[in-house]
Amino acid sequence: MPGPLSAFLDQNGLDSFLYVGESYSDADMYYLSRFLAGDRFALLAGEKTTLLVSSMELGRARKESAAHRVLSTSEFHITDKLKSSKRPDEAYALVLAEFLGRCSVKRLGVPYNFPAGIYRSLEQDFSVKILGSPIARQREIKRPEEIEAIALTQRAGERAMKKAIRLIASSEARGEMLSRGGEPLTSERVRRAIELSLLEDGCEAVDTIVAGGEQAADPHARGVGPLPANAPIVIDIFPRSKSSRYFADMTRTVLKGEASSEVVELYRTVEAAQEAGLQAVREGATGSEVHRRVSDVFQEQGYPEREGCGFTHSTGHGVGLEVHERPSLGEAGASLKSGQVVTVEPGLYYPDLGGVRLEDLVVVEKDRCRNLTRLQRKLVV
Amino acid sequence: MPGPLSAFLDQNGLDSFLYVGESYSDADMYYLSRFLAGDRFALLAGEKTTLLVSSMELGRARKESAAHRVLSTSEFHITDKLKSSKRPDEAYALVLAEFLGRCSVKRLGVPYNFPAGIYRSLEQDFSVKILGSPIARQREIKRPEEIEAIALTQRAGERAMKKAIRLIASSEARGEMLSRGGEPLTSERVRRAIELSLLEDGCEAVDTIVAGGEQAADPHARGVGPLPANAPIVIDIFPRSKSSRYFADMTRTVLKGEASSEVVELYRTVEAAQEAGLQAVREGATGSEVHRRVSDVFQEQGYPEREGCGFTHSTGHGVGLEVHERPSLGEAGASLKSGQVVTVEPGLYYPDLGGVRLEDLVVVEKDRCRNLTRLQRKLVV
Repeated sequence: MPGPLSAFLDQNGLDSFLYVGESYSDADMYYLSRFLAGDRFALLAGEKTTLLVSSMELGRARKESAAHRVLSTSEFHITDKLKSSKRPDEAYALVLAEFLGRCSVKRLGVPYNFPAGIYRSLEQDFSVKILGSPIARQREIKRPEEIEAIALTQRAGERAMKKAIRLIASSEARGEMLSRGGEPLTSERVRRAIELSLLEDGCEAVDTIVAGGEQAADPHARGVGPLPANAPIVIDIFPRSKSSRYFADMTRTVLKGEASSEVVELYRTVEAAQEAGLQAVREGATGSEVHRRVSDVFQEQGYPEREGCGFTHSTGHGVGLEVHERPSLGEAGASLKSGQVVTVEPGLYYPDLGGVRLEDLVVVEKDRCRNLTRLQRKLVV
Repeated sequence: MPGPLSAFLDQNGLDSFLYVGESYSDADMYYLSRFLAGDRFALLAGEKTTLLVSSMELGRARKESAAHRVLSTSEFHITDKLKSSKRPDEAYALVLAEFLGRCSVKRLGVPYNFPAGIYRSLEQDFSVKILGSPIARQREIKRPEEIEAIALTQRAGERAMKKAIRLIASSEARGEMLSRGGEPLTSERVRRAIELSLLEDGCEAVDTIVAGGEQAADPHARGVGPLPANAPIVIDIFPRSKSSRYFADMTRTVLKGEASSEVVELYRTVEAAQEAGLQAVREGATGSEVHRRVSDVFQEQGYPEREGCGFTHSTGHGVGLEVHERPSLGEAGASLKSGQVVTVEPGLYYPDLGGVRLEDLVVVEKDRCRNLTRLQRKLVV
């Protein structure tokens, strides 16, 4: 049993910790099992890791998962229970109770996001505590091989970013819009180039942002339609490796054509804020300190946040098996620890100027941060 | 308010139904909001649909979602609460309680998979019932535009399937393995061709199966390494459209080289079982009846299920915003209704022969089913 989990169980007087879900979206379950499944399964983490899967998944789970033991719901007569229960969820809860009995579990912990319906059923026969998942904390600190996996994903993201930037650089201004090969250069076309590049590298692009002009003033808009000339285009790529399952995250802002002095100033300020943020990241510094350093630069340079404009989001977030995970580099961010992987991504957003965001991905180390991002920053391409 | 939801709330004495999660994995939330977000948000379904999102998502949610109203967690001072709470989840539950107060909700329903931690917090101030999501039931019956979206995704899957089959057909047997252009033809290479084709069509391939020989005898093995000659290769493609978010699902089994009489017989039997299943699907037939018809063919033809071999899974499942959703065509399958979209996918699996599975996607209609799959079946290519 991993040390931290063992201590956690002891401390809370638990036999085991139970997860129920699917490991495409539940990163804790994937972290513990290394078993990727889109259908619901149960994972019992204690002295051993035990999985409960459907009979259809039994063979694959035994082959692919890192669990010590894999049991099947058909051992607990799921089909009979489905026939005699009013709802499939009831049948599943009955199977789960028998499974826990078989594993000699009486006192169990479940995570905050555990299904409420199953919680209520299990409560009748077991002592159940709802607790923060011990694994989410464990996952914050990346092992060297996890950092390597994240860095590899970032390399794939950088190759895709370069292709996107090259596409924009090789376009030409036709009036207020960019054009290439006689056709408008659209967000969709650039995004497609990014997605193809990521696929070639064995990654999936989840929700790539290629947004120019006014659209870029909304930090989460994906971007649609023709891209503007002479205005910043924000490209935010957060790919996930299909093999390792680890994410990376990076943003660049580029402009094709003539940059106004206001836009150049906006870009320089974001650059300076990012530098201040990168300087501040180290073990022991708090996420809120890093965020304040970045905010201070904006404040000092005359870009205060107001009415939904300016620097409207936090400075960064952890990246791993989830694209947004702990820790936070925001107002409530706690002390940073060596081995955490975080983004540093200040941005400024104004409807009249558009948006500028720059994002690198770094590892927290003892006296500094180590940047996993190699791609340079450059506004005009 | 949609009719079925309104009736459901009345019947259960509820003001509203509350969802908390993210709409990449929670299909009900996407169905109701048409707002795609990877970060947690709340959706309150009642007379109106109201979203609670982070301030960062506010602009996008207001633009993109179909909700009547969008509020932001910063209106409820999430940052202050994060600072004063022990855990982020506690702070979120406090925000949620204020949000519900603002929406004048007192008696609320939550789905079975609602986060247990939030359920426990809300229970203190509200009357909370855990119920099967009314939307999951509503989602079973597809509107014409949903069927159209699924059919379009199936077209993309078929184009990818054709490319995969062409790749295998144009390979040659080198000893026991397939080879193409002087290199072994691997599961990975065929899968890559499928993924590229799907990407070109604006789809993502979630976990495409290309498995030959012994690997195909495990119905969920994805397949790795060189593909065998003279043995069945199972190709199961379940793409999702990135724009509509609807899945499709289809399986073909092909063989390059010489098919033994046992394999030909296996294939013919699965074909016959699939025909029997397709004939049985219509409004009013139960999923378990359809499944029994298919099982009977296997039984009659001398392929009983035993020791994890034979027909080891159910006949089919619903497909929509989830790749596996209700209804089930299995032992506990209930009455089918017009407008449901289901797979019919019998298969036979034996370690010595390999696996054969054939899967079409059909719409349940009054007196028959309508097949959304156009691609023919053919073993030897």
